Amino acid sequence: MKYFKIAVCQMKVVDDKALNIKKAVNMMREAAQNKADMVILPEMFNCPYDNEKFREYAENRTDSRTLQVVSAAARKFKLHLVAGSIPEAEDGKIYNSSFIFNPEGVLIGHHRKLHLFDIDIPGEISFKESETITSGDRITVLETVICRLGVAICYDIRFPELLRLMALKGVELMVIPGAFNQKTGPAHWEVLVRSRAVDNQFFVAAASPASNENLSYIAYGHSMVVDPWGDIIARSGPDEEIIYAEINISRIAEVRKELPVLINRRTDLYDVVEK
Amino acid sequence: MKYFKIAVCQMKVVDDKALNIKKAVNMMREAAQNKADMVILPEMFNCPYDNEKFREYAENRTDSRTLQVVSAAARKFKLHLVAGSIPEAEDGKIYNSSFIFNPEGVLIGHHRKLHLFDIDIPGEISFKESETITSGDRITVLETVICRLGVAICYDIRFPELLRLMALKGVELMVIPGAFNQKTGPAHWEVLVRSRAVDNQFFVAAASPASNENLSYIAYGHSMVVDPWGDIIARSGPDEEIIYAEINISRIAEVRKELPVLINRRTDLYDVVEK
Repeated sequence: MKYFKIAVCQMKVVDDKALNIKKAVNMMREAAQNKADMVILPEMFNCPYDNEKFREYAENRTDSRTLQVVSAAARKFKLHLVAGSIPEAEDGKIYNSSFIFNPEGVLIGHHRKLHLFDIDIPGEISFKESETITSGDRITVLETVICRLGVAICYDIRFPELLRLMALKGVELMVIPGAFNQKTGPAHWEVLVRSRAVDNQFFVAAASPASNENLSYIAYGHSMVVDPWGDIIARSGPDEEIIYAEINISRIAEVRKELPVLINRRTDLYDVVEK
Repeated sequence: MKYFKIAVCQMKVVDDKALNIKKAVNMMREAAQNKADMVILPEMFNCPYDNEKFREYAENRTDSRTLQVVSAAARKFKLHLVAGSIPEAEDGKIYNSSFIFNPEGVLIGHHRKLHLFDIDIPGEISFKESETITSGDRITVLETVICRLGVAICYDIRFPELLRLMALKGVELMVIPGAFNQKTGPAHWEVLVRSRAVDNQFFVAAASPASNENLSYIAYGHSMVVDPWGDIIARSGPDEEIIYAEINISRIAEVRKELPVLINRRTDLYDVVEK
C-alpha cells in the first residue's frame, strides 16, 4: 500500500495491569474510529518501567492475558498492531518483548529488545535493566501487506549500525517503542529518532509512554513520527495522547533519488555486516 | 593532553584565493591570541564551493601556495591546524582534501573526501560534486600530541557506519569541515553533527564557511562543537566568526562509563568492518 495512516498511542501507563490493558484497547478503538490502519503502543505498555514490576507483571506468550486482549482488539478493529512491549516470561527468564499482529489478530512478529539499558549517572539517574531482563538475539524485519516493517526497542535505537542494517534489509517504517527518561529524553530522544530517519531515509515512529510522576521511572513522552527527509510529521508533548501520521511510502524512493545516501555508501572501504 | 582549546573559523569565503588565504591567516592569528591550541578551517576555505572554481583553484600539494602559507602560520602561531579542505590537483584529478599540520607546521595527515555530494531536488537545489572531484580511498585517524583525531569532510558525515568505525579506532575529537547549503543545512546539519557525538560519545567539531550570498552555492554556516553527551558547547550563526570550545578529553570516559554504548554493541549479531 502506498499510503496508510498510523496512530501512535502515548499511553499513561499506571501500576495496574488491567487498567493498562483497558486503556490500550480504548486507544485502539479511538484510533480505528479515526481511520488508522496501524496502531503502535509504547514500550512496557502494560507495566511500569521498573525492575520489580517487570517480574511481577511478566506473562508467558502462550497464555498472556495482555496479548489475548490486544490481538482480539486488533481483529475487532481491523488494525495492524505493534504492541509496544511487555515483560515476557519464558523458561525462568524475562524479556522486553514486542509482539506484532495483523488485522486478523494473528501474531506475525516478535522482537525481544537486543540491548539492555544500564545507565548510572551519579546523583541523577541509575537504572540497570539487565538485573531482570534477558536480551533477545534476533533482528526484526517483517513483511506486512502495507509495508516492510522494522522493530527495535528503546536503547536499540542508539546503535546506528543496527538500523543501517535494517534499512539495507528494506525496512520502510521503523517502529521504536521507547521509554526514555527525564535525563536522556530531553538530551537525546529527538536527535536519535530524527537522525535514524535522516541517515536511512525511511519513516521512523517512536512510541513512548506518557510521563507519569507517580511512577519511579518517569518516561519522557514526546512520541513522534519522522519522514524520510527527517521532518517531524507528528509529535506529542509529555501527556497522554494519540498522534496520527499519513505514511506515503513513495516518499522514500523520492528522497533516495534526490540524495542517494544508501547507494553512495563506500562498501569498498567499510560495511555493516550481520553475524 | 586532558584539556585543550579549539577554534573553529567560520570564514566568509570569497571568489579570490589570495584574500581567502589572508583571511585564514588572520583568523589563525586571532585564535592564537585567544589561546587556542588547535584551529579548524572550513571545507573549501580557499575556494568557492563551485565545480568550475574547483578546477580553477586546484593546487598540487607539492607546490601549493595555500598550504605553504597556512603551514607557516601554524608554525608561527604554534597551532595544531586542520586546514578544512582545498581542491587538490594530482595526476589530472581533483580531490576535496583536508591537510593536517602540527604546531611545527609539519604535515601529519591528509584526508580526501570519501563520499561525493550529488544532490538533485527539482526546483530547489542541484549540485553534482562528482562532475569534477575524485573521491579518496582512506579513512583518516591520526595520533596527535593532544588527542586522537578523526577527519571526515561534509557528506562523509551522513555515513554513521564510517564514524562508528572511527570511534572504534579510538577517535576522541572528530573534525568535520562541511559546507551544507540553504536546503540541507536547516534540515540536517545540527541533527547529523549532534547524533554523531551522541552515538559515539566523542567530541565533534564541524566547520562551515560563513553564508555568502554572492556565491552560487550559499553555505549554511552554523559551525558547532558538540561534546560526548551531545550538548552543543559552541555554535555560530550564518556569519563570519570564530567560535571556541574547551575540550576536556576525560569527559569521554565519563560519559562512556555512565552510559556504556560502545561496549553494549551486540557484535554477536552485527558489526561494522573495515575492508
